[in-house]
Parts: sequence; structure tokens; C-alpha cells
Amino acid sequence: MADLKETALVYCEGQFGKVDGKTAAGLVRHSEIYSILGVIDSTLAGKDAGEVLGDKKNNIPIFTDLDEALVSLAEIPNCYIYGKAPLEANIPAGERLLIIEAMKKGMHIINGLHQFFSDDGEFAQMAAQYGVQITDIRKSPQMEDLHVFTGQISKVDVPVIAILGTDCASGKRTTAAQLNQSLNDLGVKSIMIATGQTGLMQGAKYGASIDALVSQFVIGEIENAVLQAYENEAPDIILIEGQSAVSHPAFMSSIGILKGSMPNGVILQHPPARKVRVDFPQLTMPTVENEIQMIEAISQSQVMAITLNHEDLTDEEVNDTIIEYEDRFLLPTTDVLKYGSQKLIQMLCNHFPGLDQKINPVSFKVMPVLTIMQEEEMAG
Amino acid sequence: MADLKETALVYCEGQFGKVDGKTAAGLVRHSEIYSILGVIDSTLAGKDAGEVLGDKKNNIPIFTDLDEALVSLAEIPNCYIYGKAPLEANIPAGERLLIIEAMKKGMHIINGLHQFFSDDGEFAQMAAQYGVQITDIRKSPQMEDLHVFTGQISKVDVPVIAILGTDCASGKRTTAAQLNQSLNDLGVKSIMIATGQTGLMQGAKYGASIDALVSQFVIGEIENAVLQAYENEAPDIILIEGQSAVSHPAFMSSIGILKGSMPNGVILQHPPARKVRVDFPQLTMPTVENEIQMIEAISQSQVMAITLNHEDLTDEEVNDTIIEYEDRFLLPTTDVLKYGSQKLIQMLCNHFPGLDQKINPVSFKVMPVLTIMQEEEMAG
Repeated sequence: MADLKETALVYCEGQFGKVDGKTAAGLVRHSEIYSILGVIDSTLAGKDAGEVLGDKKNNIPIFTDLDEALVSLAEIPNCYIYGKAPLEANIPAGERLLIIEAMKKGMHIINGLHQFFSDDGEFAQMAAQYGVQITDIRKSPQMEDLHVFTGQISKVDVPVIAILGTDCASGKRTTAAQLNQSLNDLGVKSIMIATGQTGLMQGAKYGASIDALVSQFVIGEIENAVLQAYENEAPDIILIEGQSAVSHPAFMSSIGILKGSMPNGVILQHPPARKVRVDFPQLTMPTVENEIQMIEAISQSQVMAITLNHEDLTDEEVNDTIIEYEDRFLLPTTDVLKYGSQKLIQMLCNHFPGLDQKINPVSFKVMPVLTIMQEEEMAG
Repeated sequence: MADLKETALVYCEGQFGKVDGKTAAGLVRHSEIYSILGVIDSTLAGKDAGEVLGDKKNNIPIFTDLDEALVSLAEIPNCYIYGKAPLEANIPAGERLLIIEAMKKGMHIINGLHQFFSDDGEFAQMAAQYGVQITDIRKSPQMEDLHVFTGQISKVDVPVIAILGTDCASGKRTTAAQLNQSLNDLGVKSIMIATGQTGLMQGAKYGASIDALVSQFVIGEIENAVLQAYENEAPDIILIEGQSAVSHPAFMSSIGILKGSMPNGVILQHPPARKVRVDFPQLTMPTVENEIQMIEAISQSQVMAITLNHEDLTDEEVNDTIIEYEDRFLLPTTDVLKYGSQKLIQMLCNHFPGLDQKINPVSFKVMPVLTIMQEEEMAG
């Protein structure tokens, strides 16, 4: 399988490990399509990408620039991925030159911005000249292939769980991907629906970059992605990643996700130490209470668990927050990057009887039960 | 002023006076850009367009087809407006031929569909051949001209009122346009922001066809339209028309309107006799209670009045509903098509002290005070 992956270099100058570098972070953590050979960010050159993210060492080097990367690597990677996701859509002139440079070296260009490189006259001409392809991940299907909402979502009779959050770049996709992996490792067939460019670049088979769709079709495309996954894969459970936050003044993608997927439950991801919204320093973060109220007011869905993003928290603070939230909200609370997905899986088995019977008994034995017990002891 | 308007024929075969013909209905009621010379709908040929809508006679004839229209009219109209707004985006083959026929007669084509005629190879070629222009009302500005939300909306210090509804095609724009007209007639400078193709075709100076925008930019474009109106016009009040319903499973445009315009108050339009949602016979209508709860949960705004769409209601039922709603919701309730905008203006003056001082005393004298009294007598 690994041999079939395209090799890729991820450009993330000045942003790797920061919020606008979340596409690059997602790709070095997990991709079913690309084998990431290196990251470009001169401010972190020489470091290990996994360690910069606070994960284990992953042996993906960070380079100063394209030239250094190509000298160091044994091969020219197949693809150059533009791995930043800024609020503004247009890239600066300097970064344009680097993209053309990568084309000259024979690398295909993978782009997750709203600005489509394939529609850019200069880029299109250069790509033709150097025989490389440009893939704009966010490019919407043709109008005639887009779906409007039909209500057929009501026939989906397996649990659909949305992983929403209180802000952008808070770890919704990471939590969803970890839970998805854990469920599948246990023999529960879980399918994850991607709703943003990172999930799609990571290889999600179902989904759409919804904030790039014409607004009229957002809800229908989400409904259709869930229906397709349900019909084609006969899954035991479907997870769908949220975008931004229901409460966010600037975005409404998660509201579209609630409407289109009509989830049976919501897991709410929250960074407790964050004071103001990413990219909007004048906007204070919502409280968990308010976010839950809003989610439950705008949909028929219930928040069933809270997951923490531990940015700017010590281990002790994470544990204290888990205790505090479980007490205050009476909802299972965990940090999946620290403690894994066990508490979430337990919660899902409690809410959806029958799901526990899908768990492979052999896998179940190897579930790190001690970790659950330790965590519960710790959490109170 | 009337002399500067473009003359136009509105195509609305099979739908005039019905919900999917709401663009045509809006245009025969009011347009600052077009002078409507006739409507095409063979099922209503020979009737008066005003009377079909349940309004006063307006001397706009309904024709069987284009040929009959051109024989009857003294002149070939400047424009052929495609006046239907179906849920599905693509028009049938027969209607394509009619559009080409209109081009052959030298008429410009005005289109409010998601399907852009100017991007259609055959249409574009025919338009060039016959020297006519195609205007796609819903065509979004270029990506680089689109706005993301900035939060600057908070500097708008005049009342912003959103006219939302419980369903699509329920009369939100009609109520907004009537209230806007009444306020301006009284000397209060009111600016109406259009959020759909009909409002734009009617000549709104500010706004965007929001369901046709890339979803990422919906809220920013709404914020920008309100800001532009505020800065350029120095209005006393800004009205913004809603789209669909906050509660509608298939749409989220009104949520974008709440987020982008951050209204100080909401007027809620409701058709009490409607049982199921327009275009979605399997979806029952929401209650007024639920819609109010959802609007107030998802925004900081308060519903301040209810306006009725009297479809399928007798005059007595309208009056009974007004009494019932005022008692149940403790909110002023009226039907602006029957009783005018006085009750809404009174409500606005109560909520926004200072607004009453903008009312021209001369105009105030000619306000039909008796109508208010009659209505209050009747309603109380």
C-alpha cells in the first residue's frame, strides 16, 4: 500500500505547527494518498516534523527551502503541496515563484486554497510547459453534478456522529481521524466523511471541501456524501468532521454539517486555554455551555462527549479540566492525543446498543484497558 | 425616472402566481430597473398579472407565448427575463429554444438561475451572433473581490432589521419592500439590502445573491453590503431580506444573514395556512414558537414582530390569527399586504427611540391613522 503512495514535499513557510499550518500538520500525521518526505519552513529547519507538533519523532525532516530539500532527499518528490490554510485566499508573489520553481523540477502541484492555481493563466501555462499537473483540492464539482438536499438522509440507520468544535483549527479532524482509526482497529467498520481540504488530501473517500461549494449546495453535498458512504460501504458507524464552530460569527459550515448529516450525536472539541478565536483576535472564545446550547437549539442532535485540545495546557491542567468538565457537564471528557479514544468508544457503545457487538473479541482483548481505568481513576 | 427603465417581458410558463414564480411576481409588483410590459404563462393567458396575484389590476397582460406577446405589444421589449426560480438548476430543452428565439428578436436575456447562461456555449454564441447581452444575476463577483467577515459590522450604529421567515417563498421580500417604501414615504431614510436574485432584479443598490456565493464568503459579503449601505447612504435604518428559514433543513442562508448583518431586531414572516414546506412535501412547517427560539438561540437578535402571509386564509382567519398571535407571543402582528406597515413602524419607533423624530411631520399627517386604529380595534 505504502508503495502506491505519491511522494510529496509540503510547503508551510513560517506556519508549521501553527494554526494556519494545520493542513501540513494533518498530512505529516496521516495520509493515505501521499508519503510525506519533508516539510519546508525555514523557521524550523533541521527539526523533526513530528517533534515540532508535540507528537513522537516521525523522521520527516524540515528544510529551509526547496533547494535544500532537493539536495538532501534521495529523489525528487512527485508532488509539491501548498500546506498553509490562511484566512485570505491569495498567495504572495514570492510564494508564486516557488510554485513555478517546483514545476520546473517536475513536481505536480497540490493546492488546497480557495484560489485555484489551474485557473491562473501563468500557472496553467507553466504546468503545460513542464508537463506537470495542478490539483485544486477545493475545486467544486460542475454545477450539474451538485446535489440539493432531498431528505433521504433519514434512511441512514447507523449512528452518524459529528465532531464539532468551539473554534477553527481546534483539532476536530485530528480527534475524528483518531476515533475512526481506533474503531476500525477494533473491527468496527467506521467511515469518516471529510468536509475540508486537509481530510480530502489525507485520502478520505467521501466528502467535499464544503466552504468552497456554492452555498445553495452545501447541505445537499453533505447529505449525499453520507448517503454514498452508507450505501457503498455498509458501515457500522459514520463520523463526520466539523468545520469552524456553530457559534463562529464568520462561518456557518458546521451548521450545514448538522443540517445535511442530521447526526445522532455530537462530540465537541474545545481548546480550554484559547482566549480569542483563531484569525480573529477581537472575538473572544465561546464557552462550552453556549456552544452546546447552540448546537442543541439548531439541530435535533445531542452533545455526547467533550474532547480537549491541550494547546497551552500542562498535563496537570488537562487532567483538572477533564475532572471539571465531567462534573459540570455530566459528559465523558478526554484528550484523544494523550489518552486515546477508549472513553469515546465506551460512550458510543452506551448510546448505541449493538455497537459493542461489532467489536472484534480478539481486538477487544488488546484494548489497553488499563489506560481506561487509569484515566477514570485520574478523572475522578 | 420611468423613462430610463428597460422594458421587459417576463417568462414564467406554468408558474405565475405560484411559489416557483416568485421572481416574476416580485418584478410585476416593483422594479426600479425594468418596466414590465407583459408576462408569458399560457395557463393564465388573457388575465391581468396584478389580479392573478390577488393585488389590484396593474394592466400588465399575460400572454400565451412570445409570438403572441410581440404581436400584441407596440414595441419589442429590451429584455427577456427568465422569471422562474425552481429548486433544480437546469432548464428544460423547450425553454432553451424560447431563450434563443428571444435573442433572435433582439432581446437581452436576464437570468436569475444558478445555471449561468453566459457560460453556456450555445447561448454565448447566439448572443454574440444576434448582438444581445446575457446578464446572470446570480453570477458571483470574482474571488479577489469577495469579502470575508471582519467584525466591522459592529460599527453600524443605526438599527438593522432582518425580515426572516418560517419557509421559502413566504413573502419576506414583499414585506421588507413594503416596509422600506412606507418608511421612505414618511421621510425616514431606509435602505433595503437584497439577498436574492429577485431583490437585485428589482433594483436594490446593495446586496448579493447569497445562495450563489461560495459558502466561505457568504457572511463577509452580507457584512460588506450592510457596511457599504451604511457608509455611502447615511441611512436612518437598514432592512435586510431573509432567505428561506433558519429552521429549514435544506438551507442556511438566513443563518448567514443573521451572522453577517448582526441585526438589532427581526421581523418574522409566516404563512399560517401552509402545512408543508415549499418544494419539500415531506417536511412539515415549523411552528412560530420554534422558529423564534431558533433565531434567538443562534443570534443575539430578538424577534420584534410577526407578519402574516395570507395565502389560503379568509379575511376573517387573518384577523383571528392576528389576535391569537398578539395574545400568544406578545408581539405586534400584522399582514402588510392587507393593512400596510403602520404597526411595524410603530413597533420600530418604540424599540429605537429617535426614529420617530425622523418622521416628516407633514408625511405623518397623511399617515392613515384611522387604519391603525381600525386594525388595533380589530386586533384587540
